[in-house]
Amino acid sequence: MTGKKINIQKWKPDNRETKEDWVAIEEPLQILLNHQAVSITMRTPGDDGALALGFLCTEGIIDHFNQIEKITQVDENTINVVMESALAEKSLAGLQRNFYTTSSCGVCGKSSVDQLFQKLPHLSGQTDLKIKPQVLITLQDKLWNVQTAFQTTGGIHAAVLFSETGEYIYHSEDVGRHNALDKLIGHCIMAEKTPLQKHILLLSGRASFELIQKAAMAGISFVCAVGAPSSLAVQLAEQMNITLVGFLKKQSFNIYTYPERVEGSAD
Amino acid sequence: MTGKKINIQKWKPDNRETKEDWVAIEEPLQILLNHQAVSITMRTPGDDGALALGFLCTEGIIDHFNQIEKITQVDENTINVVMESALAEKSLAGLQRNFYTTSSCGVCGKSSVDQLFQKLPHLSGQTDLKIKPQVLITLQDKLWNVQTAFQTTGGIHAAVLFSETGEYIYHSEDVGRHNALDKLIGHCIMAEKTPLQKHILLLSGRASFELIQKAAMAGISFVCAVGAPSSLAVQLAEQMNITLVGFLKKQSFNIYTYPERVEGSAD
Repeated sequence: MTGKKINIQKWKPDNRETKEDWVAIEEPLQILLNHQAVSITMRTPGDDGALALGFLCTEGIIDHFNQIEKITQVDENTINVVMESALAEKSLAGLQRNFYTTSSCGVCGKSSVDQLFQKLPHLSGQTDLKIKPQVLITLQDKLWNVQTAFQTTGGIHAAVLFSETGEYIYHSEDVGRHNALDKLIGHCIMAEKTPLQKHILLLSGRASFELIQKAAMAGISFVCAVGAPSSLAVQLAEQMNITLVGFLKKQSFNIYTYPERVEGSAD
Repeated sequence: MTGKKINIQKWKPDNRETKEDWVAIEEPLQILLNHQAVSITMRTPGDDGALALGFLCTEGIIDHFNQIEKITQVDENTINVVMESALAEKSLAGLQRNFYTTSSCGVCGKSSVDQLFQKLPHLSGQTDLKIKPQVLITLQDKLWNVQTAFQTTGGIHAAVLFSETGEYIYHSEDVGRHNALDKLIGHCIMAEKTPLQKHILLLSGRASFELIQKAAMAGISFVCAVGAPSSLAVQLAEQMNITLVGFLKKQSFNIYTYPERVEGSAD
């Protein structure tokens, strides 16, 4: 369940009526690592295990599903991920506790600005990845088809994974765009498909620093956003050898970094 | 400066060209309280003092400008707020350090789910506030007129304050919607206009738990969003005696809570 029905009043100039309508569900999820609290995030319930795994991956704690012993739903808003204890201790010891208790959004909790750029993997440039522009302009329609929770509630973000030829692979929806991406990445970890250097990631909203950071941690080298990128998203994409496309529409798009991965060239 | 020019490639079916375009600036801001780090947030530079004050207010640290001794821009991405030291110590001591270093988004960093609902003020119900629906449907046009950074970059949120009769008072823009609201609230604290029980707050995007939480901390009892509310935003608005309007358009809107503050009644 990503949405729930509530009673609202709908106002129009000639009519004001009480009716039922759907809202996107937002509830806090507490993520535990070996029973130790590492994060609280406001998320749409569902796929909590994938969300926790994706979060641990994009925070640099895990990079493969074989590092996980088990995942347990403690209660409806708490999930516990169990790793081999020495491995968990090592991960936790390497970072300040306050980092762990705070970084569900990928930014807050870092105790200095320098930490923001830390821990990012050094991807080998996937220079042989070539995407046809004709593939990119089909993605918005494909997004709409899978965005079922958005169609009901109008209030939810999606992250969608496509192959380099534009075939749909998987998607996640969540009230938090960082959660939608963490869920998608967590699913790929479970399916042992990471790193995702041969794929296209589509984001239903804007591209912020945080989302590019998470994409980088999953080895993604081609990111498209329906909305605008921020300056720091462009800067990080440049630094991490990620092609960043924004304002993706059915008839046009903007390429912010590494345009050589889009077939053809500028006039 | 809320935006900056960069070179992009713009792709259209019959044309691909390199051109200049604007992106919204996103940079980390470190907020210090009496030289002690309390938060890092990704924000659009400008109004950093207001952002810091609004953040300290919506986190329950301050509620009046006379509690502040001075505000100093330490460097371009660091701001220091100075309070009387005993007062600052008392505020800081009452909460865990990890809460402070982490809560720029109002959610992450809380070490338990219960903490999310803590510290909210108990507003006296402002039951005599009555807003005309004809006022509400004019707000979207007024938003558009002030949203200059959005018009340039397409990637920035706004929070706008209106009087109960729909007169524009102030607005802020930021890549983070929580920052836009903190900046607006911080400005009102500087102008000694809080609490804002007689005003209308307009949000350019969706209404999440976090934004309603911040509105509640500033004493706002009427919140409109252009986008959808989440389930927890509706729940918190109900609990805090806040009227919540969503999907605000020029011809219609939805009322989620306390519809009696909108003049007229349902059929």
